[in-house]
Amino acid sequence: MAPLDALAPTGRTTLRRHPERGEPDRAALHALLDEALVCHVGLATEEGPVVIPTTHARLGDQLLLHGSPASRLLRGAAREGVPVCVTVTLVDGLVLARSAFHHSVNYRSAVVFGHATPIEDPTAKAEALHRLVEHVVPGRMADARPPSTKELAGTLVLSLPLDEASVKVRTGPPIDDEADLDLPVWAGVLPLSLLPGPPEGDPLQDHRVPVPPYVSRYARPR
Amino acid sequence: MAPLDALAPTGRTTLRRHPERGEPDRAALHALLDEALVCHVGLATEEGPVVIPTTHARLGDQLLLHGSPASRLLRGAAREGVPVCVTVTLVDGLVLARSAFHHSVNYRSAVVFGHATPIEDPTAKAEALHRLVEHVVPGRMADARPPSTKELAGTLVLSLPLDEASVKVRTGPPIDDEADLDLPVWAGVLPLSLLPGPPEGDPLQDHRVPVPPYVSRYARPR
Repeated sequence: MAPLDALAPTGRTTLRRHPERGEPDRAALHALLDEALVCHVGLATEEGPVVIPTTHARLGDQLLLHGSPASRLLRGAAREGVPVCVTVTLVDGLVLARSAFHHSVNYRSAVVFGHATPIEDPTAKAEALHRLVEHVVPGRMADARPPSTKELAGTLVLSLPLDEASVKVRTGPPIDDEADLDLPVWAGVLPLSLLPGPPEGDPLQDHRVPVPPYVSRYARPR
Repeated sequence: MAPLDALAPTGRTTLRRHPERGEPDRAALHALLDEALVCHVGLATEEGPVVIPTTHARLGDQLLLHGSPASRLLRGAAREGVPVCVTVTLVDGLVLARSAFHHSVNYRSAVVFGHATPIEDPTAKAEALHRLVEHVVPGRMADARPPSTKELAGTLVLSLPLDEASVKVRTGPPIDDEADLDLPVWAGVLPLSLLPGPPEGDPLQDHRVPVPPYVSRYARPR
């Protein structure tokens, strides 16, 4: 049996391509889900697969997704027995090899398979919405007006257990063929990260309301 | 009939939620695909939907995808008659409303539906690989060693026509309820962008090879 903090592999989470890029650690999965701002939710429909971006949050061993109860896709994902796949990807850098063939991207990605169920209990739903806002802007719920009963009812929140997942990571320099190493072509990695610019206050707001530190010093958790 | 530069909507590309966020313009689709570094490819398998990240490129009205011929998912996507969905998402900013409920994200996303076919012709395949590298690092193919015949054979390149697609964009400040406008809670947008850090040269390379300008002045097209 796999240790408790490991991701127990299944047929579809066993990496066939580049198994050395696999991260069998549950902590790596959690960190990646916590850092990524958006995920891509995949669903099989009668017309074929559909992939939609949305924000998410992690609450322990659950992945939370939310949206309008009017969203067809979210309602589809909430139906009993409907399998979903949720993927998050962070691009960490561009890998420039001497050969076109060995160009690559440094990235971290997680793929979660499972069945999502709606959170109906108002207390659990309020906690989930709290987490969804805190995921995007840690510290924000100390200031923001919490959801009203009507707003809670006007949000569909799904929970997907983090039972079946895989994490894949590429890091480090390019891996060129031996024969190419002396080519006079610059090789290396160009790191990339998602960084904030100057905050833009709402034009409808009195500009004496100060920018809070969780905005002025915003950084994704790493 | 829709004008030639417009995206002709179909049942599944007609936006039901937030139709005001739709961009009916083909130029917007092209710009978004050109700016985004990675896409998410969705496929229905016997075990359920699977969503995988990969790099892509656009060549006219085709979306190019590539990977190893050993990739089960890419091979699956290449099979005749198999529908795929490819989604790209750019996160442009965090939208902080006074109420938790109206928090949002400024983003641009494109969803493309269709059937992908492998590019077999060596000349067309070489051109596609050229585009795939140039998509990630414009200017790079002037320096990189082009693929050999063996490398070309060792790459699977798929082409997906940009016939059925939708683009969705959210921009601008938060939209709070009238009753919340005077709350003493900072509201506005925190812009985000994917920015390069200092290039990291390959430790295996002689450091007298200069960093090319397309790396030192790297920026995604916008």
